[in-house]
Amino acid sequence: MLNAFLTFITEHQLFTPASRLLLTVSGGIDSVVLTELCRQAGFTFGIAHCNFQLRGDDSEADEAFVRALAHRCGAECYVRRFDAKTFAKNEGISTQMAARELRYPWFEELRQVHRYDYILTAHQQDDLLETILMNITRGTGLAGLYGILPKNGFIVRPLLFATRTEISTFLTQRRLTWREDSSNASVDYVRNRLRHDVIPTLRTINPNISAAAARLSERVKASETLLSAYTKGLEAEILQTDGATHRLFIAALEKQAAPLELLARWLSDFGFHYHQIKKIWTARNGQTGQRFFSSTHILTLDRGGWLVHPVQKPTEISYTLEEKDREIVYSEGCLQWVEVEKLSSEKNPNVAYLDADALAFPLTLRLWQPGDWLCPLGMQGKRKKISDFLVDVKVPRSLKGQVYVVESEGNIAWLVGFRGDERFKVNEKTTKILKFTKT
Amino acid sequence: MLNAFLTFITEHQLFTPASRLLLTVSGGIDSVVLTELCRQAGFTFGIAHCNFQLRGDDSEADEAFVRALAHRCGAECYVRRFDAKTFAKNEGISTQMAARELRYPWFEELRQVHRYDYILTAHQQDDLLETILMNITRGTGLAGLYGILPKNGFIVRPLLFATRTEISTFLTQRRLTWREDSSNASVDYVRNRLRHDVIPTLRTINPNISAAAARLSERVKASETLLSAYTKGLEAEILQTDGATHRLFIAALEKQAAPLELLARWLSDFGFHYHQIKKIWTARNGQTGQRFFSSTHILTLDRGGWLVHPVQKPTEISYTLEEKDREIVYSEGCLQWVEVEKLSSEKNPNVAYLDADALAFPLTLRLWQPGDWLCPLGMQGKRKKISDFLVDVKVPRSLKGQVYVVESEGNIAWLVGFRGDERFKVNEKTTKILKFTKT
Repeated sequence: MLNAFLTFITEHQLFTPASRLLLTVSGGIDSVVLTELCRQAGFTFGIAHCNFQLRGDDSEADEAFVRALAHRCGAECYVRRFDAKTFAKNEGISTQMAARELRYPWFEELRQVHRYDYILTAHQQDDLLETILMNITRGTGLAGLYGILPKNGFIVRPLLFATRTEISTFLTQRRLTWREDSSNASVDYVRNRLRHDVIPTLRTINPNISAAAARLSERVKASETLLSAYTKGLEAEILQTDGATHRLFIAALEKQAAPLELLARWLSDFGFHYHQIKKIWTARNGQTGQRFFSSTHILTLDRGGWLVHPVQKPTEISYTLEEKDREIVYSEGCLQWVEVEKLSSEKNPNVAYLDADALAFPLTLRLWQPGDWLCPLGMQGKRKKISDFLVDVKVPRSLKGQVYVVESEGNIAWLVGFRGDERFKVNEKTTKILKFTKT
Repeated sequence: MLNAFLTFITEHQLFTPASRLLLTVSGGIDSVVLTELCRQAGFTFGIAHCNFQLRGDDSEADEAFVRALAHRCGAECYVRRFDAKTFAKNEGISTQMAARELRYPWFEELRQVHRYDYILTAHQQDDLLETILMNITRGTGLAGLYGILPKNGFIVRPLLFATRTEISTFLTQRRLTWREDSSNASVDYVRNRLRHDVIPTLRTINPNISAAAARLSERVKASETLLSAYTKGLEAEILQTDGATHRLFIAALEKQAAPLELLARWLSDFGFHYHQIKKIWTARNGQTGQRFFSSTHILTLDRGGWLVHPVQKPTEISYTLEEKDREIVYSEGCLQWVEVEKLSSEKNPNVAYLDADALAFPLTLRLWQPGDWLCPLGMQGKRKKISDFLVDVKVPRSLKGQVYVVESEGNIAWLVGFRGDERFKVNEKTTKILKFTKT
């Protein structure tokens, strides 16, 4: 195990024996083994432990365990207490996400203050496999197939050569003690399904699936490096940058082997998503002046090229909905509308049934603005400011800037993803129903 | 459905409305829907059906069903009977593989004789997802992530836009009849586990996982196209070809962004596998003259570069096993040897326990040759020709040329992957046991 550990570190040039290392230790199996291997290898290291105070006495016991472990290794021990629950609540995010957001800045601070060269985490090969499968399931491009990299800036994962089973076996052989990993217990639903249902089945097909995933990750990362070098080399031909404005030349792009993919590589840097980029590509011979928006940039079709520049004011972002188009791709996803015979009883905030007789096409899809109001369904036709509405339904601060409205002649018909408006509600006089769906 | 079908065909430039199409129809759900969509679209098509005679009367009923379907569409119908079972037995392959090997050459023959432009198969989005997951599980590079391409030469898959559920729904709505798909019933163990255990779980995480897989496949394929263009452009700098001999310049390769991956892209064309290529890369500053073998090529480390040329005679392929090396990577995998205390009771043809006292290192690992013999374990020390032995244990003809032996002073100690030799068997006088494992 020690040999494999050292080989992996050398092969991936993670650090040298002289490096000063900061180990992040929860007290769980993986981080205990990481500590033991670093001790056996004679590396110079300190230990950082976060106490998120999520499990009462158990959290205190975790902390005491890690302090004792550091003491036995003669390593400096840094502990910080975080109120992850309150932070999560204030930011409107999961406690898992909160723990992550709190943890890494503190590690980086420790690294700089105490002059460590690298931060070591105890991710192993099964974590990598889980991440790859999760990304494939949710939808990913090439980048999602790296999973977890052995080295990413100052963060280094020297346990990525080993599987969970190998780590457990080592721990048992060495009779090491550990704490039931709090991160395992609180692991989210998706990762749990992968870990306990999906991966064991896949392992019956190939017992070495984790190593296969690590090799895939390595090769995809290398391919991505080659692609970046290639793309960079083509920029002189295709891309012209003038301050914050970029110009892309369509004819030069069309000459390339896979123009859409090249376009996707450039435009994703400006916040456009793949579905949108396909539309941009398909519409390349369309009308000059046609615009597409990401949450940060505006792309305008110009003669022979596209102009991309940053959004100055969010009010610039606005899409025109023609009845016949049936669909529009925008920065938050895709909006579709279709005539239906009757309402469905399903409760889905991403679906709205609107009275087509009350709507005047073309409609407008735009970000909500201060001062906007609607008469939310189920509130007896009373006016409500959208700013107040979003507070009431507890939309996290970070997401408020991304909420869209569908507007008809200056009136808001649907607060997309939240609530319809009484004035556009389907009633007994309605002759035509339009079903709007956000996907 | 028809609109989505036509859009997919246009978007991926599969064929034009004027193309003459040959539909491959088993009579199962997917191929019945493919036929119906082509009929509705008004395409010109013929139908090809293979009767593999694997299910008795059911196979006959499948054939009759497809003939009737073709008749209703006014389409030409081509049927051929294959004796898949006998073919599989003779070639030492699975009936599934046999069906595949028999089917495609016949389709291609029909295409040429009857002047069709394309061969259409009824693969859909779930088949693609299954293939991607299967490749990831078994281990793959970038190429395994395409899954199934919409267009590959003359073979076209216009149903790749739709999921199995969408196809079933269409079939029910149209009240189409179909035959229980024989290929589904005979689907192999691995695909069954994926289809019935793994994918349903993944779908609870993302109901649109099949579409996500199709998008991934599309993007990986495009990235691969870009990488090929890039690699091709670098050849002038790094690669020199002189007849069948290629020379790779190490210094020029080292200057690139991801040299190992570039090397892997070139050497895999010569039959080297990734594990081997990593060794070749690591050993680049080693001793001149060092050789590596694939099943078709020899690579020799020369001053500042590698020479790659085709294997002339299989007898050229031979590896030297030094006791201290503990491991050798060769064209069929990896061979490892380690000292152990005692024998395990597991029966595994890829493991051999040999009496180290009887072995004289360095050993030789080489392909077996006519005239080779051994005293197979369990045959009372009788000599047996390897050619006869391989016939007795029914090794398929196609694999016979890839069987290796471990040789000690001219005597064969292990027929790798099959049987040890009595002369090297561990006995009561043995003082040192070496365990050999092929992985």
